[in-house]
Amino acid sequence: MARHKKELVNVEKATEVTAGRRLSGKVSLWIGFLLIVAMPSVTSAIQPDAEYLVREKQFGDQWAAEDKQAQEKLAALEKKFGKKPNIIFILADDIGYTELGVYGGGKVRGAPTPKLDQMADDGMKFLSFYSEPSCTPTRAALMTGRHPVRIGILGPIFPGTVGLGLVDEEVTVAEILSKAGYTTGMFGKWHIGGEEEHYPTNQGFDEAIWSEGNPPWWGFNSGVKRTDNAGYTDMGGLVWSPAPENFAYDTGGILRGKKGEKPEIVAPFSMDLYNTMDTDTADDVIDFIERHAKSKNPFFAYYAGKGNHFWGANPKFMNQPAGTNNSAQMAEHDHNVGRVLEKLKELGIAENTLVVWMSDNGPMYPMHPHGGYSLLTGEKGSTYEGGVRVPGIVWWPGTIEADQDPIDIVHVTDMFTTAASIAGVKNEIPNDRVTDGVDQTALFLLGEGKSRRDYIFLYERDNLAAVRKDQMKFRTTPVKPNVFSFFNLYHDPAERFVDEVRYGLWSGPGMRKMIQDHQEMIKKFPHRVQKAYLREYGPSDHGFDPEK
Amino acid sequence: MARHKKELVNVEKATEVTAGRRLSGKVSLWIGFLLIVAMPSVTSAIQPDAEYLVREKQFGDQWAAEDKQAQEKLAALEKKFGKKPNIIFILADDIGYTELGVYGGGKVRGAPTPKLDQMADDGMKFLSFYSEPSCTPTRAALMTGRHPVRIGILGPIFPGTVGLGLVDEEVTVAEILSKAGYTTGMFGKWHIGGEEEHYPTNQGFDEAIWSEGNPPWWGFNSGVKRTDNAGYTDMGGLVWSPAPENFAYDTGGILRGKKGEKPEIVAPFSMDLYNTMDTDTADDVIDFIERHAKSKNPFFAYYAGKGNHFWGANPKFMNQPAGTNNSAQMAEHDHNVGRVLEKLKELGIAENTLVVWMSDNGPMYPMHPHGGYSLLTGEKGSTYEGGVRVPGIVWWPGTIEADQDPIDIVHVTDMFTTAASIAGVKNEIPNDRVTDGVDQTALFLLGEGKSRRDYIFLYERDNLAAVRKDQMKFRTTPVKPNVFSFFNLYHDPAERFVDEVRYGLWSGPGMRKMIQDHQEMIKKFPHRVQKAYLREYGPSDHGFDPEK
Repeated sequence: MARHKKELVNVEKATEVTAGRRLSGKVSLWIGFLLIVAMPSVTSAIQPDAEYLVREKQFGDQWAAEDKQAQEKLAALEKKFGKKPNIIFILADDIGYTELGVYGGGKVRGAPTPKLDQMADDGMKFLSFYSEPSCTPTRAALMTGRHPVRIGILGPIFPGTVGLGLVDEEVTVAEILSKAGYTTGMFGKWHIGGEEEHYPTNQGFDEAIWSEGNPPWWGFNSGVKRTDNAGYTDMGGLVWSPAPENFAYDTGGILRGKKGEKPEIVAPFSMDLYNTMDTDTADDVIDFIERHAKSKNPFFAYYAGKGNHFWGANPKFMNQPAGTNNSAQMAEHDHNVGRVLEKLKELGIAENTLVVWMSDNGPMYPMHPHGGYSLLTGEKGSTYEGGVRVPGIVWWPGTIEADQDPIDIVHVTDMFTTAASIAGVKNEIPNDRVTDGVDQTALFLLGEGKSRRDYIFLYERDNLAAVRKDQMKFRTTPVKPNVFSFFNLYHDPAERFVDEVRYGLWSGPGMRKMIQDHQEMIKKFPHRVQKAYLREYGPSDHGFDPEK
Repeated sequence: MARHKKELVNVEKATEVTAGRRLSGKVSLWIGFLLIVAMPSVTSAIQPDAEYLVREKQFGDQWAAEDKQAQEKLAALEKKFGKKPNIIFILADDIGYTELGVYGGGKVRGAPTPKLDQMADDGMKFLSFYSEPSCTPTRAALMTGRHPVRIGILGPIFPGTVGLGLVDEEVTVAEILSKAGYTTGMFGKWHIGGEEEHYPTNQGFDEAIWSEGNPPWWGFNSGVKRTDNAGYTDMGGLVWSPAPENFAYDTGGILRGKKGEKPEIVAPFSMDLYNTMDTDTADDVIDFIERHAKSKNPFFAYYAGKGNHFWGANPKFMNQPAGTNNSAQMAEHDHNVGRVLEKLKELGIAENTLVVWMSDNGPMYPMHPHGGYSLLTGEKGSTYEGGVRVPGIVWWPGTIEADQDPIDIVHVTDMFTTAASIAGVKNEIPNDRVTDGVDQTALFLLGEGKSRRDYIFLYERDNLAAVRKDQMKFRTTPVKPNVFSFFNLYHDPAERFVDEVRYGLWSGPGMRKMIQDHQEMIKKFPHRVQKAYLREYGPSDHGFDPEK
């Protein structure tokens, strides 16, 4: 809880230095180091992280053979449908790793998830899918294929924030897919910045109906007071931001717009509206699908579901055994995902549509029992497994074989690169920056064991907090001077036995080299520093030195 | 760990009073209270616990209608096969709730379980199956349909123990099924007493090949010394009992015998033999099945798998991703369960055979990472969910519908009563004592929602440590004077948020009355007091008073 609450500091206080190990000397050096030094890459058109290059050297030939096989499958499908496949990203909110029935939750949590369970049974359920530890960072990662730390986004963006969000210079999956002729639409909770520059319609989407972020913001605009009881809890626990008159821009209500145009406010904020927002968003997605299903161009839809925490439960779904807002939200979202998949089948385009479903991070325990759950240790904001290991499913009848559950490691950024690859425009990804997302087309199409990564770098804000390689997870916070903790995630998926390192299974120069190479790459391609960086996050803390 | 270690006390020290709240006045009263007062029961031939009677009053008519439907199904099957169905109990050892793939483990734990996953897919996987908290108690409960506290068995029975075990007066499932003409066989780890009276061949089994218990005992007999390294750990951590010359009887090696005859020792103790014991046991089970498949009588086989903790890994199965003894044991057992099911299909008797698979309790963490795991809180010996909520599957092609995962609460004792019911001899269960197991035939045959129980009494030794009713779990240990903790297991399956009671969802007179009625029933049908009761367990602690 303490870790999470650290994120909920007042905007006014955010300039204070809160963390301990700050290396502000390095920061100013890095801020000055804005000239991007391009690193020549022999085999990759895009610029991957260092560890990928190590693996590419080892597995390049095998990967090339797999790519050939996958491309043949895609070519056959394109011949059949006469266009590239449609792509849908569904991003659920705060749903922990063990929440769906097929992950050990569902009925066990008093909140059955029959539609998502069926989606998993009909497709590929990932057992090691990683997000970033909170809402805004995961959304930024999904849109850009890059760890949000590289973009200068380190945590949730709160209303009234100026100078922080998805900037022009970043290239989104919508922009990439547009280059392949895709019609693109965004629906739901955007939450990567509230200024015009950040709008989805200025970030590659042809059309969008969105809200800037989460329900607490709505409170300011609908006259809800701090002391009002709004469902389970009162506003006092959630409203921490300055009053609406202090906002630097209009946070609007539900915004609707087209690419490059000024959006209109289509609905004012209200609790009633928030209650049904996931269903309304699904309606918008379905409308978009219906309008573009028969078009000569493929479509890309991004459905960002309603926050599965706070209040705002749809009364129609409140009759779950668990009786919580969270269970109603889960049931509603499950129902809506089912509606989208049914629509694809009904329109006869399911076979030509890749659907990716995933959660943005783990549960939010300050709201317990209304904020989700994970049997893993850790919560939203944390890089313990509970914070970042999330449920993830891909579905593509006839192309992704049913009933698969690969243990392969996958990261949210991979969805960006894989979408570009499937659309045939991976070469449109800029190579003047590091793209963390790796192409997982072979894993999707050919099955378990084909992941292009066996590593994950896990950041908490700008601190490299943990690194996973194979089944081993290393935490950079020392348990005592110069002694670090390892977890063997096969032996201990809930990270309870911090002394795994004493078994001597995995440590030493291999991991150190991997982290050093990752840090060298950052020096070559420095993190973006946004205008509000210092005000929102304080001085940088890239503090972990593997040589210490 | 402390809780578990409490069980591993020296036999010499076991007479010491270790727990705090002892009510020895009551004890002597209860010990004297040996005359069983029969309680007349109108609608039940057997004597259930009080809470069952409350529910029977409420649901009796509905249950009668379900029973009729289930009996019609069974009658049709009997007509087809010309005999009652065969029944197989498979009891796995120390496999935590989240260990199988279908429960969220398998590959996630670096130990895939394809055969058990398939068994679950082809049958009914229980999401709320409860065992007793440790090895011997669960075995006693499975054999007698009674909470082991009623029998005077409160914890694991260690070698050299005299005057403690499954006594003549208890009636086992093998004895009951024998009355329906079943041929009965027991194979593997017996662990309900090492004296002649306790032998499976003196407890209703026509034939048996068994070991008294667990590998540490083998050490005494094979010259292994405390300081020897035997796999992951050394003997020192496990050998706590007196030397073999102090044993009151011959613990033998692998024993083989027929009903009423003196068994022979068929194999001496050795680590090599222990390594492959699960496979050897499965061989024995399969041999038994083959010999009796075509007989005019049905058979009952009890396959008690090898301990999934300690050392003793079959080298053939050591190549699991997790690389632990435990993962090898898991893989071996999974393979062997698959062999048994395949054999039933091969012999054409799968359709007429009910197979029950379950674990005896949660993981044993002192052996981590070689002693199993659960994502739930708690371990072997504890009544937190991790100790007693276990994986459980029933399989009966054509009779139990495939792909079911009821959330219905089920207890190990129910397997006893259900087996008797399916064999048509429920009336052979004695009614001069409480039988805790309820008949779950309707649940097995008609599906989710048909469990005859929505409650579980959870004992740690002779202390009623926790009670579950619906989704609420109450712990009898006060968190402060007169304040007790509740958990809503839908909200919090891992029992982390001890203050659930403040949400006011479930407390008050209902739960108190249920516990009082349970305790009144004990007064009418007092616990059996075995000869070694005081020496092994110390004075009784039935201490929780719901009025306090």
